[in-house]
Amino acid sequence: MSLSVALIGATGYTGLEVARLLTHHPHAELAIATARAEAGNPIASVHPSLAGRLDLELEELDPVRIGKRCDVAMCCLPHAASAETVKQLVDVGVRVIDFSADFRLSSLSVYESWYGVKHPWPERVGKTVYGLPEFFAEEIAGADVVANPGCYPTSAILPLAPLIRQGLIRGDDIIIDSKSGVSGAGRSAKVGTLYCETNESIAAYSVGCHRHQPEIEDLVGRIAGPEIEVLFTPHLTPMSRGILSTIYVRPSEGLAAESAGGSSDAAVDRVMQCWRDCYADSPFVTPVDHLPATAHVAGTNYVQMSVRRSGERLVLLSAIDNLSKGASGAAVQNMNVMFGYDQQSGLG
Amino acid sequence: MSLSVALIGATGYTGLEVARLLTHHPHAELAIATARAEAGNPIASVHPSLAGRLDLELEELDPVRIGKRCDVAMCCLPHAASAETVKQLVDVGVRVIDFSADFRLSSLSVYESWYGVKHPWPERVGKTVYGLPEFFAEEIAGADVVANPGCYPTSAILPLAPLIRQGLIRGDDIIIDSKSGVSGAGRSAKVGTLYCETNESIAAYSVGCHRHQPEIEDLVGRIAGPEIEVLFTPHLTPMSRGILSTIYVRPSEGLAAESAGGSSDAAVDRVMQCWRDCYADSPFVTPVDHLPATAHVAGTNYVQMSVRRSGERLVLLSAIDNLSKGASGAAVQNMNVMFGYDQQSGLG
Amino acid sequence: MSLSVALIGATGYTGLEVARLLTHHPHAELAIATARAEAGNPIASVHPSLAGRLDLELEELDPVRIGKRCDVAMCCLPHAASAETVKQLVDVGVRVIDFSADFRLSSLSVYESWYGVKHPWPERVGKTVYGLPEFFAEEIAGADVVANPGCYPTSAILPLAPLIRQGLIRGDDIIIDSKSGVSGAGRSAKVGTLYCETNESIAAYSVGCHRHQPEIEDLVGRIAGPEIEVLFTPHLTPMSRGILSTIYVRPSEGLAAESAGGSSDAAVDRVMQCWRDCYADSPFVTPVDHLPATAHVAGTNYVQMSVRRSGERLVLLSAIDNLSKGASGAAVQNMNVMFGYDQQSGLG
Amino acid sequence: MSLSVALIGATGYTGLEVARLLTHHPHAELAIATARAEAGNPIASVHPSLAGRLDLELEELDPVRIGKRCDVAMCCLPHAASAETVKQLVDVGVRVIDFSADFRLSSLSVYESWYGVKHPWPERVGKTVYGLPEFFAEEIAGADVVANPGCYPTSAILPLAPLIRQGLIRGDDIIIDSKSGVSGAGRSAKVGTLYCETNESIAAYSVGCHRHQPEIEDLVGRIAGPEIEVLFTPHLTPMSRGILSTIYVRPSEGLAAESAGGSSDAAVDRVMQCWRDCYADSPFVTPVDHLPATAHVAGTNYVQMSVRRSGERLVLLSAIDNLSKGASGAAVQNMNVMFGYDQQSGLG
Repeated sequence: MSLSVALIGATGYTGLEVARLLTHHPHAELAIATARAEAGNPIASVHPSLAGRLDLELEELDPVRIGKRCDVAMCCLPHAASAETVKQLVDVGVRVIDFSADFRLSSLSVYESWYGVKHPWPERVGKTVYGLPEFFAEEIAGADVVANPGCYPTSAILPLAPLIRQGLIRGDDIIIDSKSGVSGAGRSAKVGTLYCETNESIAAYSVGCHRHQPEIEDLVGRIAGPEIEVLFTPHLTPMSRGILSTIYVRPSEGLAAESAGGSSDAAVDRVMQCWRDCYADSPFVTPVDHLPATAHVAGTNYVQMSVRRSGERLVLLSAIDNLSKGASGAAVQNMNVMFGYDQQSGLG
Repeated sequence: MSLSVALIGATGYTGLEVARLLTHHPHAELAIATARAEAGNPIASVHPSLAGRLDLELEELDPVRIGKRCDVAMCCLPHAASAETVKQLVDVGVRVIDFSADFRLSSLSVYESWYGVKHPWPERVGKTVYGLPEFFAEEIAGADVVANPGCYPTSAILPLAPLIRQGLIRGDDIIIDSKSGVSGAGRSAKVGTLYCETNESIAAYSVGCHRHQPEIEDLVGRIAGPEIEVLFTPHLTPMSRGILSTIYVRPSEGLAAESAGGSSDAAVDRVMQCWRDCYADSPFVTPVDHLPATAHVAGTNYVQMSVRRSGERLVLLSAIDNLSKGASGAAVQNMNVMFGYDQQSGLG
Repeated sequence: MSLSVALIGATGYTGLEVARLLTHHPHAELAIATARAEAGNPIASVHPSLAGRLDLELEELDPVRIGKRCDVAMCCLPHAASAETVKQLVDVGVRVIDFSADFRLSSLSVYESWYGVKHPWPERVGKTVYGLPEFFAEEIAGADVVANPGCYPTSAILPLAPLIRQGLIRGDDIIIDSKSGVSGAGRSAKVGTLYCETNESIAAYSVGCHRHQPEIEDLVGRIAGPEIEVLFTPHLTPMSRGILSTIYVRPSEGLAAESAGGSSDAAVDRVMQCWRDCYADSPFVTPVDHLPATAHVAGTNYVQMSVRRSGERLVLLSAIDNLSKGASGAAVQNMNVMFGYDQQSGLG
Repeated sequence: MSLSVALIGATGYTGLEVARLLTHHPHAELAIATARAEAGNPIASVHPSLAGRLDLELEELDPVRIGKRCDVAMCCLPHAASAETVKQLVDVGVRVIDFSADFRLSSLSVYESWYGVKHPWPERVGKTVYGLPEFFAEEIAGADVVANPGCYPTSAILPLAPLIRQGLIRGDDIIIDSKSGVSGAGRSAKVGTLYCETNESIAAYSVGCHRHQPEIEDLVGRIAGPEIEVLFTPHLTPMSRGILSTIYVRPSEGLAAESAGGSSDAAVDRVMQCWRDCYADSPFVTPVDHLPATAHVAGTNYVQMSVRRSGERLVLLSAIDNLSKGASGAAVQNMNVMFGYDQQSGLG
């Protein structure tokens, strides 16, 4: 009686993470895994860590067959290609969690200008729930398609949105300096992500032009109300997994006035309290006093976040595992919500 | 006829780097290396990479003996302890390059409040040249004591100072987000810098309270004129060597006005031109078009720096090797200037 | 109705791994965690990854209190200290899984000569089951004390013992070249395991004199019959977790004769078949055709092992996670066997 | 008056290492660097670490132009392609140091069977000097073509050859277990050497079938006399640079008899003395008492080697930097010998 899951595009790191998580899931089972080039081979031939743990043959993508056998599909295809497949799957009655950016943004024109493609299913843009159960659990529960969040956006939206919504910080002076492990760049063969290129090296990339910037702005706006603007700088960091976001914000006039009269930590306390209130029912979001490190959440679906004051600014820090809460763990969490299971099922 | 050099406190990473660099130096030779606990042992017993390359016995610190045998001392002791030794060495006529923070700051009270100690030689505070030959070569050439710069300050001052001096950026809205390799934390046995604590993990530390913050503010002020204020956040990064500083600044009104009329890259071009002019005679400072990575400067005394525009802000990026240009390479460069050699001698 | 577990010596990496595994275990719960220096602090203060996941205060070791509250103790203390505590716990009726080497060897004199101490509970030496459920499940089920295996021995005994037992390889020409991640060296502050000492470096240590050598010889003998002799060389490898053992053996005369007549892979096939037969009911031991990598088993309790032929020798390769199957995962597996649960409970 | 050097195939890691070393060389200068796909671009565009340090445009390979401008060429092309180019360069009077395996082996048939290609210049096979100046300096000095050694062979031949030549060890029972950093796999885009595939993982590859096995056997035979046979197992290790070889050998009857009567370290002493005698005039080969680590020789042309006794066997350990002494540093050392400079020029 467990859920039957299809994994579309199983050869990458997010695909492996989905497969791994499902081998432990009490209510779901991986029934179909697709991969174009490797169809016909056992999944362990592309992911040797699954040898002896998951006996499944990779197959070609066949929406009809998936429609017959599966309740839900996790779609790990590149943008645009993904939207096409999502549409086919929805047409055959499969609910879909889409890892691509195709249904994350509210605006078709923003999507098409940042991603440089025509959207294959424009009608659904702006009408698909964003898969952050901390804010959208109710819509996720009823959705046929869930847009699984980007990894950087997850690390930024979770600390920012409650503070903006409560009017504690300004929306026009936000700098997000994010550091990601290399798995965020995917598993295709590129010189830039070879071991010897990234080991012992940290560098920024896509400064001021990364596609996750509009996603962060869009979602914080949707959750919290006012429009915000962020400066977002991602960095490639010599580790496999993890994202640390260091976020520089200014207290709102209200918070500044309020905390001016009190102890030096008043603003910090207000931020912590706001987070605790907002995430009281969110099992994975953990405000902490210590400064979070990516290792503290590695391999888990947890988010650790903390705050410090420095001069007139507040420094927010959040750590996630980019492949788990930043991708595949979030997808399983979304699946749990969609099918009425405890959010933590299979994610313990 | 070559310089005879003493290395005080030879067992750490900066000590090893000094020893390595001097084995290649055409005009200088390591004559004495001191280490309290290991005195009597060959230097290769604490630094096995020197086996067969440097045959020298570690000895106790004896200023008189150093005074008789050496022209210059590199002092790698902890703060306060260092100032005491520096005074003894100066008294016996040895010129000193001091790796500690004891003589870097202009103000005794700032020093004593940030470092929490009485200064052992307060008369020299504010009267010692800061060892950044890019700005202070002339004073370094005549100095008896040179305060070797901090690693983070080097990575921040070099991109910032020329822009502040030329009035291109504002001094009151500067955020420095720095990422350092683990060697910056030194070689003493601490749980926090064990392999398994830092590997696969990035985290901020000392947010808003790191001692290099006043050093950056002090020095940019000394070089460039107006007082500035910075928000400085260091991060421990899973790599042995290197510092990347991502610096968020705002164009001054002048630059904003000027570049508003021109092409979108006008502000970027002005920054690059300012750096090229300022560092035309500085062989190690390299403005580059690409985004610098710490690996690009690993093991060298070079600084790569670059700039991007994002919204109303400019993002400055600089990469150094924290043990070379951030410490021991800078010391050799200072020694070269003090004794009239080419800045690049032994640093090729 | 779940098991109540005490964790003795909770501050190291094996302690953290036990705590993590038990947060997922369906039938067991961590009730008491002890740590001398940190008693009174929350466990998350020494293991920040447990923040928000395990709310437990560290306490002093009190066997009587443990006797009242717990069914089983996992003892992560240094050798000799461990045996004393194990005795106290057994005296109050607690069953113990001991991570130290105190009860692994058959011979008191071998123990005392390799470990250089008087054994605190000599009567139990040679009378305690070795915690390898693949061979000793029945005795483990009834044991009051289980000697949890060493990490290197696990990686060597599992591939070797069935082949010796079946007479497929010679026992007098075995070379084990093992490569371990740094976590095997523990979490105490030592210069040798600082990030910058071990990163980008591999080296052998304790060549010909590592304490796991007699453990391997003793156990293979106990399992397989004849006495064997091994040459064992461990290497410190720049990674946090994992052990790869590359084991060079010679076919027995019987196997050599038999495979001489057949295909070139006959000896390889016989080895694979022997492993498959021996481990048919062992859920964690996975003979594989590919060459195992430590990453394939990272974070799991699995063992991957493979074989190749080269000239007259066979090369056996085995990969485990040193903290899981090499320590804490094995302990949970033993606990499962001791209390009648499925071996895989909590280890999925 | 300095040497003019051509670098053929400049885009890989060995090419970068050659370029870096030559920027420091007192008697040689890089005049031409070729790269097919990137011709026309500055070399810093493929190697950003050279920005501001080497101003050279990549060009197409043109042997005639190289013949006019250069004294010597370093050829970093794949096997077979390399031999063709080497022939063209020799025809126009350029001396060549060839990084490929094309001229390393004595036997054409061995080459063709292990490399699976027809050799483009079979006449030169068996008539080209092997570029190990520790043994062949005189022939290298007069050679038009030098076969630069393989990285693993260098790490194995240097410890083995003197011991075989002196009859101290047996030639029929040699196991070489080598661990290499990832740069040995080159800079082309392959999934297997992506950061996330090799980080936190060690694995063997090409067990019993690596092409460096016949090279080791051939060269030890050429240097030392009798034919030997080795079992060679390379491992991919999570680090950028370095090779550690752990070599298991048996003392000859002579050495066994001799050392049986003496102290327990007699065999070890004889090995150390043999190495010291053999390498007395070899500035880069350093027998050491400690166990060598790859970090001890990283970025240098040094070889550290050591020996331990374990039971009836001796364990030899050697550490090199695979890109320096294992490739580009050796090439510069060969160039120095070919043109009459000190072996250490530019390699200090």
